[in-house]
Amino acid sequence: MRILFHHPLHPLSRVARVMLAEKGLPFEPVIEKPWERREEFLTLTPAGEPPVLVEDDGTVVAGGLALIEYLEEAYPDVALMPREVALRAEVRRVASWFLQKFDREVTENLVGEKLIKRLSGQGHPYAPAIRAGLANIQYHLEYIAFLSERRPWLAGPAFTVADIAAAVQLSCLDYIDNVPWDKNPEAKDWYARIKSRPSFRALLADSIPGCPPPKHYADLDF
Amino acid sequence: MRILFHHPLHPLSRVARVMLAEKGLPFEPVIEKPWERREEFLTLTPAGEPPVLVEDDGTVVAGGLALIEYLEEAYPDVALMPREVALRAEVRRVASWFLQKFDREVTENLVGEKLIKRLSGQGHPYAPAIRAGLANIQYHLEYIAFLSERRPWLAGPAFTVADIAAAVQLSCLDYIDNVPWDKNPEAKDWYARIKSRPSFRALLADSIPGCPPPKHYADLDF
Repeated sequence: MRILFHHPLHPLSRVARVMLAEKGLPFEPVIEKPWERREEFLTLTPAGEPPVLVEDDGTVVAGGLALIEYLEEAYPDVALMPREVALRAEVRRVASWFLQKFDREVTENLVGEKLIKRLSGQGHPYAPAIRAGLANIQYHLEYIAFLSERRPWLAGPAFTVADIAAAVQLSCLDYIDNVPWDKNPEAKDWYARIKSRPSFRALLADSIPGCPPPKHYADLDF
Repeated sequence: MRILFHHPLHPLSRVARVMLAEKGLPFEPVIEKPWERREEFLTLTPAGEPPVLVEDDGTVVAGGLALIEYLEEAYPDVALMPREVALRAEVRRVASWFLQKFDREVTENLVGEKLIKRLSGQGHPYAPAIRAGLANIQYHLEYIAFLSERRPWLAGPAFTVADIAAAVQLSCLDYIDNVPWDKNPEAKDWYARIKSRPSFRALLADSIPGCPPPKHYADLDF
């Protein structure tokens, strides 16, 4: 069976897990701690970053963004991007917003400082980064509200990888209880729709030893 | 005519310029200084980052990675990615290496500190970042040598966006004379092949007022 090397609180790894589940592709998940720089893993991907997919025929797909495009090209039956070229560009724009901009401005500052540093033994959280992350998340939740007021889903009429990209970031933040849901009802409504999808179930079952999530993390009525 | 908003020393902007030239698509280049956060530009792209392409029919494509995929999908006649799905994944892996990893480890530390800070009035260069960038570039030049010893081009048998991605990063570094070419003859040979392509000519003619490039920057026999 195909193998996915991933880390539970790594956003691009979460995208890969949700995409594989949406497309109905069975896989064996293997947790990879990138900070250990395990030699076998580095032979698969010199960048040393999950996710990495190893197909049954030995094909290795490394790099989170490359893997998104690969899954869409190799398994198009359940499409997570529209067909029309300009609409695809909008999906990728919104997906990049969350996978790159949100990641840098929010997730690295909060999940990175509070949780990944602790798991990887890289020292104490840096308070100014945490303050920046907490300030920045509000702006991104407002952007989700802005988009979801104008469109059924974040990048247009259909559920796409743009929704997956945004939802996995919020799910990582929700794992450390850092999403102000009460102040952001539109973003909460949109997230609730994704949280209830079967493809999201495995993510909601994640629990890192010594760092369990808050109770509402897995609750569909949060 | 289609318009490309770009910045001369912004790697993803350079990728767009080279791809448009390779595909023979005429465009009007407009220089955008993202740090000015110009209101008209922000209405095109809330992320405020070049490159942004505006097509004749008004279609706006924002986000550098989205634009790469868009140009490949909308104008496939001159292909800059192979057709086979697994080979495309390898092209995207190598392209991401340079557009994300190299950018973070080298370009931001050197071009960002030495040139962009000065142009945008964001203060003085941070010496530890510059030291890190100078140390990191060597490792990446060795990776280019490693790949180009095993393959005709960085991601396989053909010239692809992976080569463009790596070449534009090096061209930005070369603009500030920070590429140790003499110590890295394999990377130099590979770069020389790209530098001589007609699609690269406009980049080699770039000259920022007050910050001209070194003489060898535009020299094909460097």
